[in-house]
Amino acid sequence: MSRVYNFSAGPAVLPEEVLKTAQAQMLEYGDSGMSVMEMSHRSKDFQNIIDTAEADLRELLDIPSNYKVLFLQGGASTQFAMIPMNLMRNKVADYVVTGQWAKKAAAEAKVFGTVNEVASSADKTFSYVPDLSNLDISPNADYVYICQNNTIYGTTVKELPDTKGKDLVSDVSSMFLSEPMDVSKYGIVYGGAQKNIGPAGVTIVIIREDLITDDVLPGTPTMLRYRVHADAGSMYNTPPCYSIYVCGLTFKWIKEMGGLEAMRERNVEKAKVLYDFLDASEMFEGTVVAKDRSLMNVPFVTGDEALDAKFVAEATAAGFKNLKGHRTVGGMRASIYNAMPKEGVEALVAFMDTFEKENR
Amino acid sequence: MSRVYNFSAGPAVLPEEVLKTAQAQMLEYGDSGMSVMEMSHRSKDFQNIIDTAEADLRELLDIPSNYKVLFLQGGASTQFAMIPMNLMRNKVADYVVTGQWAKKAAAEAKVFGTVNEVASSADKTFSYVPDLSNLDISPNADYVYICQNNTIYGTTVKELPDTKGKDLVSDVSSMFLSEPMDVSKYGIVYGGAQKNIGPAGVTIVIIREDLITDDVLPGTPTMLRYRVHADAGSMYNTPPCYSIYVCGLTFKWIKEMGGLEAMRERNVEKAKVLYDFLDASEMFEGTVVAKDRSLMNVPFVTGDEALDAKFVAEATAAGFKNLKGHRTVGGMRASIYNAMPKEGVEALVAFMDTFEKENR
Repeated sequence: MSRVYNFSAGPAVLPEEVLKTAQAQMLEYGDSGMSVMEMSHRSKDFQNIIDTAEADLRELLDIPSNYKVLFLQGGASTQFAMIPMNLMRNKVADYVVTGQWAKKAAAEAKVFGTVNEVASSADKTFSYVPDLSNLDISPNADYVYICQNNTIYGTTVKELPDTKGKDLVSDVSSMFLSEPMDVSKYGIVYGGAQKNIGPAGVTIVIIREDLITDDVLPGTPTMLRYRVHADAGSMYNTPPCYSIYVCGLTFKWIKEMGGLEAMRERNVEKAKVLYDFLDASEMFEGTVVAKDRSLMNVPFVTGDEALDAKFVAEATAAGFKNLKGHRTVGGMRASIYNAMPKEGVEALVAFMDTFEKENR
Repeated sequence: MSRVYNFSAGPAVLPEEVLKTAQAQMLEYGDSGMSVMEMSHRSKDFQNIIDTAEADLRELLDIPSNYKVLFLQGGASTQFAMIPMNLMRNKVADYVVTGQWAKKAAAEAKVFGTVNEVASSADKTFSYVPDLSNLDISPNADYVYICQNNTIYGTTVKELPDTKGKDLVSDVSSMFLSEPMDVSKYGIVYGGAQKNIGPAGVTIVIIREDLITDDVLPGTPTMLRYRVHADAGSMYNTPPCYSIYVCGLTFKWIKEMGGLEAMRERNVEKAKVLYDFLDASEMFEGTVVAKDRSLMNVPFVTGDEALDAKFVAEATAAGFKNLKGHRTVGGMRASIYNAMPKEGVEALVAFMDTFEKENR
């Protein structure tokens, strides 16, 4: 057996170099005489691991000094509650609904206050990103929320909304570290690690310091207060140490690859291979409006469910795994995160081309 | 370098066999062609991993069929809120306070209702377990809460409280799977994995089905509802897949070692080596009342802070790591979880004996 091309939407492919380092260090990390999994989170070795991970992430994203980096648990789904519980002082927030995860985030916020859906692309199965340049922002909105890359539908918000002075909160799970971003434009940027960074079980939250307060909604659990985690350097309780360690290895890998500008170039080039093929194909078609296409998640269909199923089955047998699309879109989806090599996309396109010729 | 004897209270030593399997499977799990870290949680391979882990845990603990097993995130600290938010229908609960973690759990429950401390051993730095045979249980208590093994203070609740018909909720983090237990005596048994089972980042909750309801406190986040996780087989959102996989490897290891009866025997024998030495020593002394001593966490002192520090420094240099006691107890603490071999304890005792002779 050998490693396959894994197009999973998440958990997803990781850099082979990262896995090999984790493998080599599994029983003994450095001169510690133990696995990172066995290390006290209060030890110097682990403190160094988390500090280095944070420093590398700060360097990669050029995070301003008035932002904290938190390594938390519970996934984006926990942030869906944590954000309103910590930020909804006026009990009003504006949500841009561009897919299932934004919709879930908005639904959860409704538990805590009034949610205005200021834009939506639900009318066309979220296959585009609405114009966000002049939204009807609520005068007393505590924040404006977007999901910046929509994993299921394959769209990316490329022009940030004009929030008219309100703080912008963005879920970047499926595009985290795929290209540079200007953190200073956001109040909170967050994402689950399991798409572009590391194993499931750690959520990275980058939050501007003035949003970290004790003025949270009544009944907010201690573990859902940003303040508690910020004050404790993400170690109020035992953090997901091993997952943080693997994220740190990925940060090093991205630095070695040339940082986020190099990642963007690589990702643009990779996505172009697939989109160019889809645009030229007479069998396969991308489902997303061209201007809003994601560099990370590429849904496509043949227009014939039986043919879609045949393609997925044959692709799987040929070593192209996890290409089945989400049930709400149907067809196929290729997630081509940072760690997917260009050769993987080229091999997929060659396979699609052959399939098209054999099945036209 | 080679592996040390790691007496950390958690994250803590794991079986070398488990680490070696994880190492061997790091780049390719079975014939999947990918790491478990890279696997979709919706894949057959991962479903099989989590199903097998649950089945093995059920077998080990002989969990009755009317209990659900949940693999969650956020550690015991998140359970401190989740328990009252899900169970406190009368807004009253009784807490037995036998250490810092029980104290924190009680403090968090106070956010949501009235908490009665029905017993405490705070008067003697939690060095004993109070008599729990006839507690003043509140007539309308929603549950009675204990922390069954007190990691910091080294005590174990050996006789469960008479809850007078109320549901018993127990934090067993630092004794999980160290010996058999009768799950049917509890409403909820839970523990963080990072002491006796696996890496930090997964919390195992065993909960009787009738306690899983939609009748939760208003404002309970979706992610803090037992019902949501139970209905979704712990996959409402992406679970901490890799940590669950390592827990599964540990369950297999425990089964291969002969199950929980064999674990108890092994742990009793191991702890006896250390306690016998402490009882005979003229320099070192255990800090816990004999009848309440934990099999897992063994705090001890010399009575002289400078000598304690000297011992810890020399032990560390000799390869006995993480022996420094918690700041609230001082001195030393040896955590001797399932994965600590008897030879580790024997080597420690030999080292202590030499130290005593050289420093008397």
